[in-house]
Amino acid sequence: MEFDLVVKNGTVVTAQGVYRADVGIRGKHIAAIGEALHGEREIDADGMYVTPGAVDVHVHLEMPIGDFVSTDDFYAGTRAAAFGGTATIIDFVEPAPEETMLEALAALRAKADGKVVIDYGLHMTIGPTEIVKLAQVPAAYEAGCASFKLYMAYGLRLNDGELWQALTAVHNTGGLPVIHAENWDVITTLVAENVANGRTSPHYHPRSRPAKLEGEAAGRAIDIAELVGTRLYVFHVSCGETAARIAAARQRGLPIYGETCPQYLLLDWSLYDRPGVLGALPVCSPPIRAQEEQANLWRALGQNHLQVVSTDHCPFTMAEKESRSANYSQIPGGVPSIEVRFAAVYSQGVRAGHLSLAQWVDVCCTTPARLFGLQSKGEIAIGYDADLVIFDPERERVITPASLHETAGWTLYEGMMLRGWPVVTISRGKVIVENDELLVGPGYGRFIKRRY
Amino acid sequence: MEFDLVVKNGTVVTAQGVYRADVGIRGKHIAAIGEALHGEREIDADGMYVTPGAVDVHVHLEMPIGDFVSTDDFYAGTRAAAFGGTATIIDFVEPAPEETMLEALAALRAKADGKVVIDYGLHMTIGPTEIVKLAQVPAAYEAGCASFKLYMAYGLRLNDGELWQALTAVHNTGGLPVIHAENWDVITTLVAENVANGRTSPHYHPRSRPAKLEGEAAGRAIDIAELVGTRLYVFHVSCGETAARIAAARQRGLPIYGETCPQYLLLDWSLYDRPGVLGALPVCSPPIRAQEEQANLWRALGQNHLQVVSTDHCPFTMAEKESRSANYSQIPGGVPSIEVRFAAVYSQGVRAGHLSLAQWVDVCCTTPARLFGLQSKGEIAIGYDADLVIFDPERERVITPASLHETAGWTLYEGMMLRGWPVVTISRGKVIVENDELLVGPGYGRFIKRRY
Amino acid sequence: MEFDLVVKNGTVVTAQGVYRADVGIRGKHIAAIGEALHGEREIDADGMYVTPGAVDVHVHLEMPIGDFVSTDDFYAGTRAAAFGGTATIIDFVEPAPEETMLEALAALRAKADGKVVIDYGLHMTIGPTEIVKLAQVPAAYEAGCASFKLYMAYGLRLNDGELWQALTAVHNTGGLPVIHAENWDVITTLVAENVANGRTSPHYHPRSRPAKLEGEAAGRAIDIAELVGTRLYVFHVSCGETAARIAAARQRGLPIYGETCPQYLLLDWSLYDRPGVLGALPVCSPPIRAQEEQANLWRALGQNHLQVVSTDHCPFTMAEKESRSANYSQIPGGVPSIEVRFAAVYSQGVRAGHLSLAQWVDVCCTTPARLFGLQSKGEIAIGYDADLVIFDPERERVITPASLHETAGWTLYEGMMLRGWPVVTISRGKVIVENDELLVGPGYGRFIKRRY
Amino acid sequence: MEFDLVVKNGTVVTAQGVYRADVGIRGKHIAAIGEALHGEREIDADGMYVTPGAVDVHVHLEMPIGDFVSTDDFYAGTRAAAFGGTATIIDFVEPAPEETMLEALAALRAKADGKVVIDYGLHMTIGPTEIVKLAQVPAAYEAGCASFKLYMAYGLRLNDGELWQALTAVHNTGGLPVIHAENWDVITTLVAENVANGRTSPHYHPRSRPAKLEGEAAGRAIDIAELVGTRLYVFHVSCGETAARIAAARQRGLPIYGETCPQYLLLDWSLYDRPGVLGALPVCSPPIRAQEEQANLWRALGQNHLQVVSTDHCPFTMAEKESRSANYSQIPGGVPSIEVRFAAVYSQGVRAGHLSLAQWVDVCCTTPARLFGLQSKGEIAIGYDADLVIFDPERERVITPASLHETAGWTLYEGMMLRGWPVVTISRGKVIVENDELLVGPGYGRFIKRRY
Repeated sequence: MEFDLVVKNGTVVTAQGVYRADVGIRGKHIAAIGEALHGEREIDADGMYVTPGAVDVHVHLEMPIGDFVSTDDFYAGTRAAAFGGTATIIDFVEPAPEETMLEALAALRAKADGKVVIDYGLHMTIGPTEIVKLAQVPAAYEAGCASFKLYMAYGLRLNDGELWQALTAVHNTGGLPVIHAENWDVITTLVAENVANGRTSPHYHPRSRPAKLEGEAAGRAIDIAELVGTRLYVFHVSCGETAARIAAARQRGLPIYGETCPQYLLLDWSLYDRPGVLGALPVCSPPIRAQEEQANLWRALGQNHLQVVSTDHCPFTMAEKESRSANYSQIPGGVPSIEVRFAAVYSQGVRAGHLSLAQWVDVCCTTPARLFGLQSKGEIAIGYDADLVIFDPERERVITPASLHETAGWTLYEGMMLRGWPVVTISRGKVIVENDELLVGPGYGRFIKRRY
Repeated sequence: MEFDLVVKNGTVVTAQGVYRADVGIRGKHIAAIGEALHGEREIDADGMYVTPGAVDVHVHLEMPIGDFVSTDDFYAGTRAAAFGGTATIIDFVEPAPEETMLEALAALRAKADGKVVIDYGLHMTIGPTEIVKLAQVPAAYEAGCASFKLYMAYGLRLNDGELWQALTAVHNTGGLPVIHAENWDVITTLVAENVANGRTSPHYHPRSRPAKLEGEAAGRAIDIAELVGTRLYVFHVSCGETAARIAAARQRGLPIYGETCPQYLLLDWSLYDRPGVLGALPVCSPPIRAQEEQANLWRALGQNHLQVVSTDHCPFTMAEKESRSANYSQIPGGVPSIEVRFAAVYSQGVRAGHLSLAQWVDVCCTTPARLFGLQSKGEIAIGYDADLVIFDPERERVITPASLHETAGWTLYEGMMLRGWPVVTISRGKVIVENDELLVGPGYGRFIKRRY
Repeated sequence: MEFDLVVKNGTVVTAQGVYRADVGIRGKHIAAIGEALHGEREIDADGMYVTPGAVDVHVHLEMPIGDFVSTDDFYAGTRAAAFGGTATIIDFVEPAPEETMLEALAALRAKADGKVVIDYGLHMTIGPTEIVKLAQVPAAYEAGCASFKLYMAYGLRLNDGELWQALTAVHNTGGLPVIHAENWDVITTLVAENVANGRTSPHYHPRSRPAKLEGEAAGRAIDIAELVGTRLYVFHVSCGETAARIAAARQRGLPIYGETCPQYLLLDWSLYDRPGVLGALPVCSPPIRAQEEQANLWRALGQNHLQVVSTDHCPFTMAEKESRSANYSQIPGGVPSIEVRFAAVYSQGVRAGHLSLAQWVDVCCTTPARLFGLQSKGEIAIGYDADLVIFDPERERVITPASLHETAGWTLYEGMMLRGWPVVTISRGKVIVENDELLVGPGYGRFIKRRY
Repeated sequence: MEFDLVVKNGTVVTAQGVYRADVGIRGKHIAAIGEALHGEREIDADGMYVTPGAVDVHVHLEMPIGDFVSTDDFYAGTRAAAFGGTATIIDFVEPAPEETMLEALAALRAKADGKVVIDYGLHMTIGPTEIVKLAQVPAAYEAGCASFKLYMAYGLRLNDGELWQALTAVHNTGGLPVIHAENWDVITTLVAENVANGRTSPHYHPRSRPAKLEGEAAGRAIDIAELVGTRLYVFHVSCGETAARIAAARQRGLPIYGETCPQYLLLDWSLYDRPGVLGALPVCSPPIRAQEEQANLWRALGQNHLQVVSTDHCPFTMAEKESRSANYSQIPGGVPSIEVRFAAVYSQGVRAGHLSLAQWVDVCCTTPARLFGLQSKGEIAIGYDADLVIFDPERERVITPASLHETAGWTLYEGMMLRGWPVVTISRGKVIVENDELLVGPGYGRFIKRRY
């Protein structure tokens, strides 16, 4: 037979357009797109969309935060991703103070390589203790960490001078800086004032982190990036205020990019007013915001003011959330979205008229691959990795914790009915999910050395 | 053999990206994109770009204007287009007062069908005498004229009320209105003042049609389009003033589009100061403008404020130009660009860093096809018409009249060295230009019924 | 005694600030502002505001429109103005085709000079028949008509080329062009469509003149003014759309100005849905608009995007309105506001927090005087004409036709309670209104030769 | 005689307009503005402008900075101010860590009260050690410090959380926060990098404090102010980047204000390249910038994007400057402008066409008085303090250190010819400067308790 595997009769959706074709795979790569292709195995995708494997550039698997570790380890997390149609993730390396970047990378890979079921890349984090290690940035880049995470919040926060230093070092290497932008000084002041006045319920979480302070920080990072002359990618944009600053910078011709996440597109801050631990579950930062921000974010995606939907997937168990729920500022922050992302953007974005089919694939697959140096991912074209999703646009699914493969045991999307769901996931030419079963074991995934 | 024709080993450039692949053609369509394809005939494109056949949505072939007829007839014009890598053009139907739109369409097709060597479509012109024929718009649309030309200048000028009527009729049919936007009343006043004062040399041509008056008219048309709720496409944007109004409308979320042309991107108004007939040759409207507008236009293309490069190809002979050169306002307006467009945007746009390879294909092939309802054109994807160009990025050519197949006998680009030129043009699966020879005869081209 | 008249103990309000002082008048001029001034006559203004006499730069008295003449003649209209605190008006000269501008001015003055009870100036209208008389513009300017009215609507409409000619002529003379901006072609098309479909009630009046078409026309006039390099003043701005275009032009540094009127600030288009003739009364152009425009206009005044409140006072009797009410497009257009303007802006503007006291005086007195070349009007400063108003901020008045001195017999403000009303009006040193009585006879007013 | 002092026959210039009048003074106040006033003393001001006494809201007299103290003490500084036409200054209180605000105020007043020859007010500085003293803000306000200085740079720098706290406290009291806005973290990083690489000459001073970093900090302060809901006044705007952020905030309706200073309006950064100590003299922060910023700042003043011209007067001797000139970052920062300000804005601003006469008085006298709660200053109106300047618009003066009364011994304006100079200064009814002589002794000035 000419091909090893052919996806037949499907409607191919790329970031550019939609057409009917067969996709032929030889070994690990897409070898042909054509009519009447034949292969050793053939999968009929009639009535289905055939898309690139989705790419989630922002996940935190088995990540230690204080006393806790995010619930999904590299096996469980990549398994859930695979079921959701995601064929590549990018997670984070956070060097300990005494570690070199390469040592930290090696340690992380030692933890992940044997567990992942899909391909993965790693951002290198530059925290305050890494400022003295900036000479290691080229080595990290060469080792495949082409993007570098900078924080303006939390203990990992860089002050603006350190930010300038880190941006300069990353820019000189050709890497892409990615940033968590919030005004930490004001937020901690507002939190302290709330706590001092007994306002400790999750209701006050979004109210201590107003949209203005996210917009301000993003604007400041953009200003410093402009001074350095570097590209910059803004993580988890949750509001129109931040999107507007990115749009204004892009309008001036600056290479600034931004992502948002399903929790900001689909949910609103009334969740924080649910009773008991239910109000604690949605705690994440930036917080989920007032309902009108959903429309702002869909519009920003539609107008290319934001370019990517990722997840910032970082769940903790209900027990962990509850153990700290007496004071919202102590609740471990993070929510799960890794499995629903691709379907959620289709169901609530494309079906609702916010995005076209091509834009859906663009923000979930193609642009994240392009921006993050995943050179063989995110497209259906000859020579690219044969990462494909067969997506049934009519398959309905009511989200429940049991319906997902995430391990947190809860989901903020519980009860939401999504129409459209991935039914087959193919990674490097191999069918890895089919008939609701995972067909590969831990370690099938590969670490990808990213570069520009 | 599996395919009729295979373009092998080339670098495929689409609006979305760049990858190496063979392209397999069966009959008139693209049947496969893959590795190691084989066909009855195989063309080696190693070191070449393989692009979609280019699409020029704005040409005037053998068009009567007053005492003259534009020099290239449907044979000569489409032949020159084919040599330049253009596989589809869109020309115009202008009904006579007593003709129905369908009669005028039939008459035009009777003139063109037997001559064209590439595929072509037709815009239907709605002049003042067509306002009473607006009930014919649906029939024109059904007959394949999916776009409708409206003038704010010349004898074909609609006043704003007629413009509202025409836009409403086109919008209700689902068609796309396209517009020549200049403030005719002020321009004729400025011209009259110049002529009355003996300022009749071509130097005064651009000075009677200032950029502000093009921007004003485009802005007015956009305002009326917004009132109607319709899409609108602005022809031959020659300056940043107009591009800014289109950009502002798009920023507000309106479906407004614009094109520019090679003469505005590559040339400047010093041409009007050349001696004798040389100063008369570049007379066209809008005029070629001050040099700084070139940068404005490249930037507008790069930022997607403008979406298309077409030509407005409409040449007259040097003798015709000369015969009226005593008074710039009487010189027949129009310049030739049909053959150089695709190469010129590559050489002066991509090589100069204004556009990416993907943007080049986007503005010259893909977006014009999408916007104008050429459903099977402008992409390299399965099932699309096998319109392809093999483009040698290193082929150097110094432009002279003799080097071109246009019949005007002169070119404004004379002496310009372009690096990059199309070497093979394929139309519906057939090689029509190769080794500097045209391989098909008049009538090979087909009229395309466009629709949305 | 040192002064002829002293206004004592009042609170002086100027465009710049507020302070307590006596104002001393000698002859026709303000001779002193000070403490403890004494004069032959002294008026105690304790608890009152003392403001400059108000200036209304846009009124139409005994103006012929078709079969009708606006109801207030130069006596009745200026009398009503005086009762409302207005000490100067500017009306219009409209030359007949065969008249020179100076003849028309003389004819108008022959009609008005003997009737007016307050000072007045005249705009010179440049209609289509005046384009051939543009050489007379300097003479008109020298004769005191420093501002020139241009129409983009009605029979007096100039096309854009004529507009360019008129603006150029006025600019070269140093005069100020003032413009009625609406897109007449589209409006007449919309009207014709409504009438053809039997939609003839006043409800359709504002719906045939959408805000977008006023904004478009104002924007176009600004573009042409920018080309000419001239100042421009936009009459009767009724919506945020137009205010935004003026604001944008001013932001670019252009000398563009705009006014609004009480009917746009205080009323909304629900008035057109009142039964019978009541719906016909508010017909004027631009129309009164949706309620949200009120806030847009107050904000535009507060931010100096608009600079003046005038009235466009031009009433017709109820019988006249009714006689044509079968078809809204035939109803004589115009409404009365000449008497309530100054109090209305105070009551609904200052008391409601939209404007400061100083802004109230600025938009009603000082800026109109400055912009229109009324060099001795609109300020409380030494040497200026002693035009003053003593304004009781607590005087309450429920508006009824009987409470006003206008002669239309109806008012759109009927039933509105204004808090604050002028109690004394002084013109050139003479008390002309006091104790609700007019103390001067027809002809007391003087024609003012305005200049810059 | 009716008045104690009459300034006769002058041309009164106020922020609102220009007119000829006598100004009559009784005791300490303006008692009349009129014609033919007479007084015990009469000064003929024929051919002169009569303006309010100028107000300089930003000076640093005998201020300790590290090892140095700014050269002009409260006597010398106010004396120089008086010779320049300034009748009121506002200086600063900087509490020591262990002092209360009121103690620090008392200490400052003990130092200043006996020395000042003109009236003065004081800003209260809130540095990091004052954050625990925010409960004292109402007392400071009540004691007359109605405005509060906040720093984003130097040792007095507040972090953003402290800034939020300080803005909140000042806002709740009704005071006006004023801010030094620069991004300190990035600046210190750039300085450190320069110094580490031996780039220590003053040439690198402006290059370590790019305009972008001033704009960023001002934008951030505005964002935080918007969150708090407070007014904010931005000190020493030196570039268009910052002016644009203030303009944008004002455009959104926020109560944000900004000032610039003569050194930014009249000088450029080529001064830093002068040899030896001459390059060290202009060191101040923000730095003097590239020449094109001058036009940006004049335009911002003309368009009311900036509202005030103050001086930030803070000179050090040439010896002091020189002692630290080996490393630009150690040079004591500050330059003298206190004496030339009023004349310089007239000569280089009004005469050069950037500002009108009224705007000159507005930005130098009236608006600073209004914004800073100097309720009896800055206007020529009845009841206001009789602070007046008689200004000779034709008096030419070439600036040299010897021509000034400042004590630094050098001036950056050396050799500049100003046309227009104050010839008489009157403070609270008393002539304090006349015939180039100071007519009052130390202690004539009064501390002014400012309030809103």
